[in-house]
Amino acid sequence: VSSVGVFDSGVGGLTVVRALLEQVPNESILYLGDTARVPYGNKSAATVTRYAENAARFLLGRGVKMLLIACNTASAYAVDALGASVAVPVLGAVEPGARAAVRASTTGRIGVLGTLGTVRSGAYLRAIDRAAAELGRSVRIAARPSPLLVPLVEEGWLEGEVPELAARRYLDELHAEAPDLDVLVLGCTHYPLLRPLLQRLADERWGRPVTLVDSAATMVAETDELLGARGLRAAPGAIGELRCALTDEARVDEVGERFLGRTLGAIERVDL
Amino acid sequence: VSSVGVFDSGVGGLTVVRALLEQVPNESILYLGDTARVPYGNKSAATVTRYAENAARFLLGRGVKMLLIACNTASAYAVDALGASVAVPVLGAVEPGARAAVRASTTGRIGVLGTLGTVRSGAYLRAIDRAAAELGRSVRIAARPSPLLVPLVEEGWLEGEVPELAARRYLDELHAEAPDLDVLVLGCTHYPLLRPLLQRLADERWGRPVTLVDSAATMVAETDELLGARGLRAAPGAIGELRCALTDEARVDEVGERFLGRTLGAIERVDL
Repeated sequence: VSSVGVFDSGVGGLTVVRALLEQVPNESILYLGDTARVPYGNKSAATVTRYAENAARFLLGRGVKMLLIACNTASAYAVDALGASVAVPVLGAVEPGARAAVRASTTGRIGVLGTLGTVRSGAYLRAIDRAAAELGRSVRIAARPSPLLVPLVEEGWLEGEVPELAARRYLDELHAEAPDLDVLVLGCTHYPLLRPLLQRLADERWGRPVTLVDSAATMVAETDELLGARGLRAAPGAIGELRCALTDEARVDEVGERFLGRTLGAIERVDL
Repeated sequence: VSSVGVFDSGVGGLTVVRALLEQVPNESILYLGDTARVPYGNKSAATVTRYAENAARFLLGRGVKMLLIACNTASAYAVDALGASVAVPVLGAVEPGARAAVRASTTGRIGVLGTLGTVRSGAYLRAIDRAAAELGRSVRIAARPSPLLVPLVEEGWLEGEVPELAARRYLDELHAEAPDLDVLVLGCTHYPLLRPLLQRLADERWGRPVTLVDSAATMVAETDELLGARGLRAAPGAIGELRCALTDEARVDEVGERFLGRTLGAIERVDL
């Protein structure tokens, strides 16, 4: 049985796996986390693209029927190149997040928080423009790198003064630029773990409910559609299995399970 | 002319280069920063050791006459193995820091802040015990991982509420365990950039002056001694040159020069 391959720089992509397990439980999943080289967010386009190619080669070597790039930074830099060069369908995190954001916005003003690489690449800007054009909408976006949110999540500081002050600082800057936004994209697989905090602070800052969008749910819906369109869906009665491959096993128990919401089971250590 | 090879996981080791340029200006330096795989602090002993071996092979291939491991995590996990396997003298960051700490302490109670890996390895505990035995002193140590300090430095947040609250939280936990300490080791090459903040908070928390120790000055003094003892010193009239090799060039202008205190000049990108 062929699996859906999910790739992330680390364990943050397990938020996408969690959504897959809930929404397409009969699909088997092979998750690859490049934990020996995490994070990608501050690294160059050339390096991140090379790492994404390493990961794709590994997953294709294991016979996956589809490739999901859960990492926003890797998606931002490498999804087009990978989509053009591999034989299976490739889905990144940026396009689904962009489509979800455009659909959710009433004011047409959309904010994006992401890593330095994701924001610098301009990928969300282009993807949101494309999604708006497809939907016949007019939008403007404001993007702010918020690199400290990743280490805060990894440290497990999800509430309290330090994450609150850091998040407030990023949101203040976004508010100054876009006081009229009504949708905020969580453009990194780590950020959904800060959702309760970010929701509270964003509502407070903008003085009205802000819709937070992350890519996971939309990625999973689009995965299901793509598998259906290509005739690649698992048999309806199949019971999906989750297998994990990591390039480094340190801290998986502590950090990985926070993202997945359950134990990870057997992990294979691999070199890319 | 043969160089002194300095290795770090990223650009933090440039604090050591800065001390070398000041204290042994006639030595040439080849700096290698593994910026494509930074940080090492949360990664496993096996992965960090492999990376340190990659780096040593690269620097030895370039003919360095000595190897300085500026990264505390790499020193903690790999300095013994490297010292036993390579033909040139090897000096890590942990032993010099430990010796400086023991010499500086009056109460015999020493605190250590470092990455998760550095603290978990127990390397400072062993090195401080050894240094104390050599100096005929009795000491006790308390160590606390403070992983958020690295991303704060990389983000350039060296003063202000966020770094202050994060540092205060780590220092509070150290104070609860060691209310009698008088020396605090900055056990990571990133932390010296937070020295003004950490000095102020530590003095305030312990209610008396706390001596902050980092490895850079002692490493440089011991480098000079080692070169002298092996007859490897540069000619007295030589003008040292600095060359830099990095595995990824992103953000070097912004971040690297913060550590070095001047421009880096030409950088060679290399693969390990």
